[in-house]
Amino acid sequence: MPSAAYARLRDRFARIATIGECQAMLSWDASAMMPEGGGAARGDQLAVLSGIGHEMLIAPEVGDDLAEAEATGDWDAANLDLMRRAHGRATALPTSLVEASTRANSACEKAWREARRTADFAVVQPYLTEVVSLQRQTAQALSAATGLSPYDALMDGFQRGVTAADVEPIFAAYEVFLAEALPRAEALQATRPAPIEPAPPFAIAAQRVLCREMSARIGLDYTHARLDESLHPFSGGTPTDVRITTRYEETGFAQALLGVLHETGHALYERGLPTAQARQPVGESAGMAAHESQSLIIEMQAARTDAFLGFLGPRLQTAFGGDPRAFAPENLARLFRRVRRGFIRVDADEMTYPAHIILRFRLERALIAGNLSVADLPGAWNEGFLGLLGMMPPNDTMGCLQDIHWHDGAFGYFPSYTLGAMAAAQLMAAARRALPGLDAQLAECDLEPLLAWLRQNVHGQGARLGFQDLLRTATGKPLDPADFTAHLTARYLV
Amino acid sequence: MPSAAYARLRDRFARIATIGECQAMLSWDASAMMPEGGGAARGDQLAVLSGIGHEMLIAPEVGDDLAEAEATGDWDAANLDLMRRAHGRATALPTSLVEASTRANSACEKAWREARRTADFAVVQPYLTEVVSLQRQTAQALSAATGLSPYDALMDGFQRGVTAADVEPIFAAYEVFLAEALPRAEALQATRPAPIEPAPPFAIAAQRVLCREMSARIGLDYTHARLDESLHPFSGGTPTDVRITTRYEETGFAQALLGVLHETGHALYERGLPTAQARQPVGESAGMAAHESQSLIIEMQAARTDAFLGFLGPRLQTAFGGDPRAFAPENLARLFRRVRRGFIRVDADEMTYPAHIILRFRLERALIAGNLSVADLPGAWNEGFLGLLGMMPPNDTMGCLQDIHWHDGAFGYFPSYTLGAMAAAQLMAAARRALPGLDAQLAECDLEPLLAWLRQNVHGQGARLGFQDLLRTATGKPLDPADFTAHLTARYLV
Repeated sequence: MPSAAYARLRDRFARIATIGECQAMLSWDASAMMPEGGGAARGDQLAVLSGIGHEMLIAPEVGDDLAEAEATGDWDAANLDLMRRAHGRATALPTSLVEASTRANSACEKAWREARRTADFAVVQPYLTEVVSLQRQTAQALSAATGLSPYDALMDGFQRGVTAADVEPIFAAYEVFLAEALPRAEALQATRPAPIEPAPPFAIAAQRVLCREMSARIGLDYTHARLDESLHPFSGGTPTDVRITTRYEETGFAQALLGVLHETGHALYERGLPTAQARQPVGESAGMAAHESQSLIIEMQAARTDAFLGFLGPRLQTAFGGDPRAFAPENLARLFRRVRRGFIRVDADEMTYPAHIILRFRLERALIAGNLSVADLPGAWNEGFLGLLGMMPPNDTMGCLQDIHWHDGAFGYFPSYTLGAMAAAQLMAAARRALPGLDAQLAECDLEPLLAWLRQNVHGQGARLGFQDLLRTATGKPLDPADFTAHLTARYLV
Repeated sequence: MPSAAYARLRDRFARIATIGECQAMLSWDASAMMPEGGGAARGDQLAVLSGIGHEMLIAPEVGDDLAEAEATGDWDAANLDLMRRAHGRATALPTSLVEASTRANSACEKAWREARRTADFAVVQPYLTEVVSLQRQTAQALSAATGLSPYDALMDGFQRGVTAADVEPIFAAYEVFLAEALPRAEALQATRPAPIEPAPPFAIAAQRVLCREMSARIGLDYTHARLDESLHPFSGGTPTDVRITTRYEETGFAQALLGVLHETGHALYERGLPTAQARQPVGESAGMAAHESQSLIIEMQAARTDAFLGFLGPRLQTAFGGDPRAFAPENLARLFRRVRRGFIRVDADEMTYPAHIILRFRLERALIAGNLSVADLPGAWNEGFLGLLGMMPPNDTMGCLQDIHWHDGAFGYFPSYTLGAMAAAQLMAAARRALPGLDAQLAECDLEPLLAWLRQNVHGQGARLGFQDLLRTATGKPLDPADFTAHLTARYLV
């Protein structure tokens, strides 16, 4: 029987989560609906809600209740641990540091937009220097409170229970794999016919219908979801009201469609979280890497199989018409499974994508450790990129200025992308073992068996398990990049 | 120089208002965007925000600061008065009463939907009895705190500074006017050719374009506004981000278009509130009657003039095509300026509308005074309606079950509609005196001079003046129904 203190904590955390839901909805609105003139007031609204939620989390009586609370059973015990963790992280940071970071991030983000537009790193350098300095202080404070190293303490905020020591050998091994695999994949690709590009325009009305229909067919229930448009596609909202977005262009359909499948994967995770633990820390997702695994298992693992493309081809032909050879499944495979080195992370294929992440991981670790100065970042970026992908960025907009993350104060987040991609491969391999009929099901766009498996093994687990334990329970082992390299080998090297 | 206590109060009220903005946005979303499945969580989100705002308003230190605060100058003095008023009203009600009302209103609203659907008053009677009982307690508590009579104390929450003693003679005189004017207007109308009904369908895409274009032309700046769709049209959002809605049907265009003009009037009021007092009580609108005057001055006063219909006709012809005689200005005048007795308030013309309000005013006063029991409401309604408009409602869905207001706990609100209609006529008459070129401007859809006058005399005054003082300053006299009856006489009786 849970203690009174624990019951009080559950109430308080539910209230804090409800405020978080308001923030999520208002953030969605800001990106998908809000007229430009509403921006200043929206910033104030989000700041007030954020302040209220923070005050509720750091209130002295929370510390007292956490000291006194007892909880039995897996779920409640894990929940209490996560409450302690959230309270500990929130109280570790002096309010002055949080406020200084918020201001510095906001100023830097503004300067970054200008710097990226003009490819002029000098514009953002002083702002980014301040951001990094404050992030180092943040990391130190979190390190003191958690016992983790400073960089690990930051990373822990995005993906609990994964450290740089876990990531480093995995990334080092991938670098070795890539050095051999990428030229081989390119050479193999060159021996095969180039894909036929479907001919634009692709009517936006038809794309809208297609995207909505496909996301619904793979399992998104639109009585609890919306699909809208925004400059940068994302998945937001709350578990009973998920909001995904995409961006349509008449010149191509693939970006919007595959983007919607990606965001649908995120949304299905939120929809599958354990309702009995709604608004509790243990009822949330298992972190950013786990979340990315769920978007990629749909977008990269399931949707790019021969089986699924066999379903998709005729549907595309109906939607857009034109040369039927362009929508033949084997052509779609050549279109959607192409290896191409490039400078821009968000445009990268799944084989080269980790190289973009490895570079960022190494650089941000060095920045937080104080082994790299912001002034030296562009040079270090270009050198690292050349080493990993053999190309030299022509300017900083194609290099260290391309992503918003650092300029917005997010350090320790980038590894989640590749950890998620690797976890997606590992989970898909386990799902295949459990579901011998998977390809036949994908060929009919029947994702229900796969989803049921994910709901049981991932979504329904909430945050009860950390990333490694989640994978161990679902697949029999902690994160093992062998499944990812096996997937790439099967898809690109034979 | 304002005191430190007053400065603290300004900060606190700005924070409370910012939470109110979050509520406004989430309420808009609930009506215009939210998938059905998000309803339960949204209810929790709004309740949490409402609780937080209420706690911030009744906190003991607010009382201390209000006792100590000093403010000089019209605006600050009025602001401090309004702060004291808001705090006084909020602290007058025990939390248990507020919570009981919230629960009772919610249960009654649910029962009302069923009762209205089945025209069965017995379904809602016990729930409405509870709502009325709690509203009477609320009225008593507010009366004790404000010195107003119980009903006036409720009405004061919607429209500050107007009492039943102000309203009663105005409504009595209107009843006398109507008894004579309505049959005359009907007789006159019968001597004239019936209007030609434009032939449906009216493509919804064309209606959307038309509504947006017209609202923009009359002054709504879409960098600070959105127009969307909802079951019940409304105006919401915040002053820098107003959100209006309408509902389109292929069978008719007038309801959506005139509705959008109405909501645009509300939105323009919000847009014109004094920015120097943003998020302060004195920076809000002057109340519900003042707000309704601003929607009606656009929808009823300006848009139904011969001048404006002369502009609108050709635009409608272009949008929808078909028989040009249907869009001739003189036909539009016959269509949009028609007197027709009916049972339903929201479908009423501007001459019979006040009769619907007079009935509700008398009944709700009697309910709050304890002179009428809920069990006797249907009979009293039907008898009153027969007396005012000479027709007997065939069932309670066409009678006392038609409006949500009472079943949602809103007593004292209904008079605002007719006070607003009368104020709109009075303001329009004053604007005509100030702007001799008004009709020529309306004929070109140039509402800027009228808007400039309204911004100076109404919008920009915020809540500095009560309803009567606002009218006195803008028009030289307090509310005077003679301008409204003169308007009706000119429009329907000659």
